[in-house]
Amino acid sequence: MGFCDEEGTRFGTTLLGSRALTGKWQEQWRHLKDENGVSLEQAMANFGLSFDAVNSAAIPPTDILGYLELHIEQGPVLEQENLPVGVVSAIAGAKRFNFTVEGMAGHAGTVPMSMRRDALCASAEMLLAVESISLQRPGVVATVGKIENAPNGVNVISGRTRFSLDIRSEDDDLRDSVLAEILQKFDDIAQARQLTLTSEQTHSAPAVHCDSQLKQALVRGVEESGIAPRILASGAGHDAMAIADICPVAMLFTRCKGGISHHPAESITHEDVAASLSVLYKTISKLKHA
Amino acid sequence: MGFCDEEGTRFGTTLLGSRALTGKWQEQWRHLKDENGVSLEQAMANFGLSFDAVNSAAIPPTDILGYLELHIEQGPVLEQENLPVGVVSAIAGAKRFNFTVEGMAGHAGTVPMSMRRDALCASAEMLLAVESISLQRPGVVATVGKIENAPNGVNVISGRTRFSLDIRSEDDDLRDSVLAEILQKFDDIAQARQLTLTSEQTHSAPAVHCDSQLKQALVRGVEESGIAPRILASGAGHDAMAIADICPVAMLFTRCKGGISHHPAESITHEDVAASLSVLYKTISKLKHA
Repeated sequence: MGFCDEEGTRFGTTLLGSRALTGKWQEQWRHLKDENGVSLEQAMANFGLSFDAVNSAAIPPTDILGYLELHIEQGPVLEQENLPVGVVSAIAGAKRFNFTVEGMAGHAGTVPMSMRRDALCASAEMLLAVESISLQRPGVVATVGKIENAPNGVNVISGRTRFSLDIRSEDDDLRDSVLAEILQKFDDIAQARQLTLTSEQTHSAPAVHCDSQLKQALVRGVEESGIAPRILASGAGHDAMAIADICPVAMLFTRCKGGISHHPAESITHEDVAASLSVLYKTISKLKHA
Repeated sequence: MGFCDEEGTRFGTTLLGSRALTGKWQEQWRHLKDENGVSLEQAMANFGLSFDAVNSAAIPPTDILGYLELHIEQGPVLEQENLPVGVVSAIAGAKRFNFTVEGMAGHAGTVPMSMRRDALCASAEMLLAVESISLQRPGVVATVGKIENAPNGVNVISGRTRFSLDIRSEDDDLRDSVLAEILQKFDDIAQARQLTLTSEQTHSAPAVHCDSQLKQALVRGVEESGIAPRILASGAGHDAMAIADICPVAMLFTRCKGGISHHPAESITHEDVAASLSVLYKTISKLKHA
């Protein structure tokens, strides 16, 4: 089965295809609009589909034993370890925040270093704290991907900086413990520099764990294909997160070039596709006889 | 004497008024355009002035003994030290650069911390190096006021960051020595993180030192006004930089509120103006009798 619109690119809501299968569409999605103002309901009608008929796509949980998903890794781990495939342990849960640091803008020539309350310098210290804390805690990735500085002039000390934080782990408790450490460090930095720090949480999703029996079946399939079994977490979201609502799920990753994804340079080899199909075939054959 | 257009706001070239007095206008300024495409020559003509007549405003250096300038501090030092005025030692020289850090963009969920080449984290480390090195070297201020990050997405590891550096001192050698230390540190950081760093210099101006005799005369004028003499450098540029081409210069700073300048909140008190005029009067009286 191939699902449409895993990414939510057009209407901003992810996993639309797989969520139809699980009967989890929400009534308010009817009015979601794309960037041209076309509603999801209208876009479906233009394609000959009916929003109201989506619920009829739902599969009764009693009709489904389990779900196996094949996906490219979208990361560099398998390539670095010279392995064609890997078995997914869990799909990481994520939290996202926006932080605002308020300092005091000033003239780059006239305010002595010791009298500054430079929002960008404070943010730089916070960014490095995110990096160093996460480096010390395996199993967590934390990223400041977005930053906006004001007034952002070459001869003006920064008065206000906003930046994002994205933190993920397959272990929600570990993620929240590392997050607490980061937030404490942010507060310490803001206090030491006499700056104000405010934050808003913009996203929260728990980790989805792969079913241990299906995962073990995939591991055996990998071994029977003559490949060393490597278990790794998925940092990105996948349709398996939606399907986990109605049945056990597991996932197999295929190595991709340079870890690059969502980019024209995204690439896998024929040999790795063959290895992935071999693993899936052996896994499903075993499950049939189990 | 009050000079027009010290800031260069309209045509991007500073100190136009004072440079007319020193006979240092350049022929190519004729064609400088404002944001509406009006040339400097045309703007002058619209005001009833002639570009070609500017040179007749030049004062022969033999006609002028010295130049004293009164200006607000534009910084917080005098306010912090509870002094109405201060005597300027020198107008800081400045260098400016743009730096570009190129790393590797990637998915915030799928690239392990240890495999990242995050341009924004590297830039954060460089920003903090600028701050900590400058804090250790009194007499220098260095500022990263501007930063642009790409792709700047909440779930994307930074692939490229550009930031500015503005570094100033009344001592050109000290400034260049601190700059060399900062640039060495930048290279070390880029190398350790396996990122590429490129730079372009966008500005360079040497410090202008106030004349020691005029400066001493101002110090005596301050003392005779019953004020503790405080000598401080000017981090901002002033017309005295232009006038220094034709005669000895010195400057007196008046305290301003909160160090704020170029802002509607710029403010000084009547009392501080009176103190400033007292100092100038006593200084000039002494010079007349010297």
